[in-house]
Amino acid sequence: MALIVQKFGGTSVGSIERIEQVADKVKAFHDRGDEIVVVVSAMSGETNRLIDLARQVSSRPDPRELDVMVSTGEQVTIALLAMALLKRGVGAVSYRGDQVRILTDSAFNKARILQIDAHRIQADLKAGNVVVVAGFQGVDEYGNITTLGRGGSDTTGVALAAALKADECQIYTDVDGVYTTDPRVVPRARRLEKITFEEMLEMASLGSKVLQIRSVEFAGKYSVPLRVLHSFKEGPGTLITLDEEDSMEQPIISGIAFNRDEAKLTIRGVPDHPGIAFRILGPVSAANVEVDMIVQNVARDNTTDFTFTIHHNDYEKALAVLRQTATEMGAREVSGNADIAKVSIVGVGMRSHAGVASRMFEALAKESINIQMISTSEIKVSVVIEEKYLELAVRALHTAFELDSTAG
Amino acid sequence: MALIVQKFGGTSVGSIERIEQVADKVKAFHDRGDEIVVVVSAMSGETNRLIDLARQVSSRPDPRELDVMVSTGEQVTIALLAMALLKRGVGAVSYRGDQVRILTDSAFNKARILQIDAHRIQADLKAGNVVVVAGFQGVDEYGNITTLGRGGSDTTGVALAAALKADECQIYTDVDGVYTTDPRVVPRARRLEKITFEEMLEMASLGSKVLQIRSVEFAGKYSVPLRVLHSFKEGPGTLITLDEEDSMEQPIISGIAFNRDEAKLTIRGVPDHPGIAFRILGPVSAANVEVDMIVQNVARDNTTDFTFTIHHNDYEKALAVLRQTATEMGAREVSGNADIAKVSIVGVGMRSHAGVASRMFEALAKESINIQMISTSEIKVSVVIEEKYLELAVRALHTAFELDSTAG
Repeated sequence: MALIVQKFGGTSVGSIERIEQVADKVKAFHDRGDEIVVVVSAMSGETNRLIDLARQVSSRPDPRELDVMVSTGEQVTIALLAMALLKRGVGAVSYRGDQVRILTDSAFNKARILQIDAHRIQADLKAGNVVVVAGFQGVDEYGNITTLGRGGSDTTGVALAAALKADECQIYTDVDGVYTTDPRVVPRARRLEKITFEEMLEMASLGSKVLQIRSVEFAGKYSVPLRVLHSFKEGPGTLITLDEEDSMEQPIISGIAFNRDEAKLTIRGVPDHPGIAFRILGPVSAANVEVDMIVQNVARDNTTDFTFTIHHNDYEKALAVLRQTATEMGAREVSGNADIAKVSIVGVGMRSHAGVASRMFEALAKESINIQMISTSEIKVSVVIEEKYLELAVRALHTAFELDSTAG
Repeated sequence: MALIVQKFGGTSVGSIERIEQVADKVKAFHDRGDEIVVVVSAMSGETNRLIDLARQVSSRPDPRELDVMVSTGEQVTIALLAMALLKRGVGAVSYRGDQVRILTDSAFNKARILQIDAHRIQADLKAGNVVVVAGFQGVDEYGNITTLGRGGSDTTGVALAAALKADECQIYTDVDGVYTTDPRVVPRARRLEKITFEEMLEMASLGSKVLQIRSVEFAGKYSVPLRVLHSFKEGPGTLITLDEEDSMEQPIISGIAFNRDEAKLTIRGVPDHPGIAFRILGPVSAANVEVDMIVQNVARDNTTDFTFTIHHNDYEKALAVLRQTATEMGAREVSGNADIAKVSIVGVGMRSHAGVASRMFEALAKESINIQMISTSEIKVSVVIEEKYLELAVRALHTAFELDSTAG
């Protein structure tokens, strides 16, 4: 018997038929004696429908009132799921965010959870009921309805699991787990049995979009074991955990992440003074362009070459800003390239293994893939390469780090 | 400057365009310095859409969960209206039933309001904001969402007006007021400037369906002046008030109500013993048939004739029950007639004027309309006639009691 928080997203509850399937799944856990709290999102499409309605009134709807509106999406789902459970003879009760009570700050549309009062849920669980909670929403200290922003239902699930000291928080999705890399690129990609929070964060932020980054951070902070599973297929999924203990037995690298959405900008021959990084990147971020990788090299003539990557969509804007900066600073040249890709190897095993980066570079060199930029952190190494070599690079690295499935 | 509660029903907020029109109207009141609380229903069709969705899960959805679901309908409307007001530069804030807080009993789907905490609304009004409140819903003492049942938004409006000691509760509808009778039957029917609660109750229960009976009772109990107005046409509407003071100047009769939905049942030659009314009507009400008018006459042979009216739809069922009763009681005969209509004259003026009933009978006799049943109360006289004479009777009475519009 365990206390499990299960989160089902919009696609998993996107129709009455799917809600019935979710009810079957929840009932199976409940029947075997588990205490179950279910967190659900709005039925897929519903949140957009509500936002569209608001936009018909105002192109910039009032944030407080928008939350009053969009929070109705989950409220419909919790009632439907509770009804479906009751129909199956499973005791069930639904709660909105304010009822349980999920206290947030007052940042409408992107509120953060401050505190959860678990008493009401615990009483219901003790009475043998499944508790169905609306994801994505809460209430501020003044009693105003708030929402956590897109994907916030994952965060609700993890926060509830933390408050209830649940044995596991299960996130049901449309994939059956976290893979060593994208199976569409590498058919021999393997589902990971286990991955650490840190690795998951690096994988997620690098483009393996399975879970909301915020919810993984949250789970890590409160040590909530997180499991990613498929909503409608059986299988153990992938467990995301703090536990690194047996990582010695695991491969050094857990996965290969990649991202095609970046572009690269370079400013060359900048007179090398203290504070040039700020003088270059200040105007870029003032233009609301987010910078990812940054590399700086001092050249022989006491000038500096400075390269950074940004999102593809911001390329033209950032290029214009950088040209202006170059003129002001007396830099020699500005260049850019939107046809790049970033590939990263991720793994906590790097901490205890030397030479991981060079093994990566070796594998790429063997395929004659030129590396344009390198950036490293404690558990990942990222390189920027020409976009057309992306698939080749990922496959080469997947094999080099012994991630290929033996079954595939 | 006045404190006004304005209630707009589902049709009045049935589209974004109409919500914008409502916002214009509310703004006009706010601009002239009134303090405004607006109560809105769900957009027309929305409540039915939600109930249909629930029925797809269960033919008898759990009452608590059904309230969780259907209460989202008004929640969407309050946000849209608040957005529309804010867009117009009018300070506005929306509240669900539980936020204001409208405390009800726990009778899901048909809860009754117990108490309203007006502090929050008063603070907002003081700050110059329009307060938009979701009609039809509340919260019980345990924090469960409740709804008041169909048409409950009128009741919310009146209850809020009572709690806030509002100067007036305005109910916006698709008619421009309460008429002396149905203008479709009598083209010269007049809009009443004023009508008392008692008269309104008799008019409403007799078939002039403008307002929810419950909300009129409520308004009368708490002396809340109620005004019926058209949502999108200008005009003073009809004021419903306690005030009878200047009724001497008014016509004796305020209006003519009628109802085609009744049927009549008669049991003849019942041996006259104490308790026969209960023996006859007990089985009828046990069969869930509501009885309206009841007339009993003692015949010469010490038997009794007993006649009563019921809703048209219950005719066959009630007839079968009555036949069974007749056999058991040894009654002589059972008969029935579904082709009848009830016509009533209503007016507090009757209290101070004698001979009102005979003036009614005289008017009907002049048209050779036979009266089958008569029933009287302090402020109304009802007769049952053959249905085909209904229009003729209503027009004759409208003229006889000097209700005809001089303009018409």
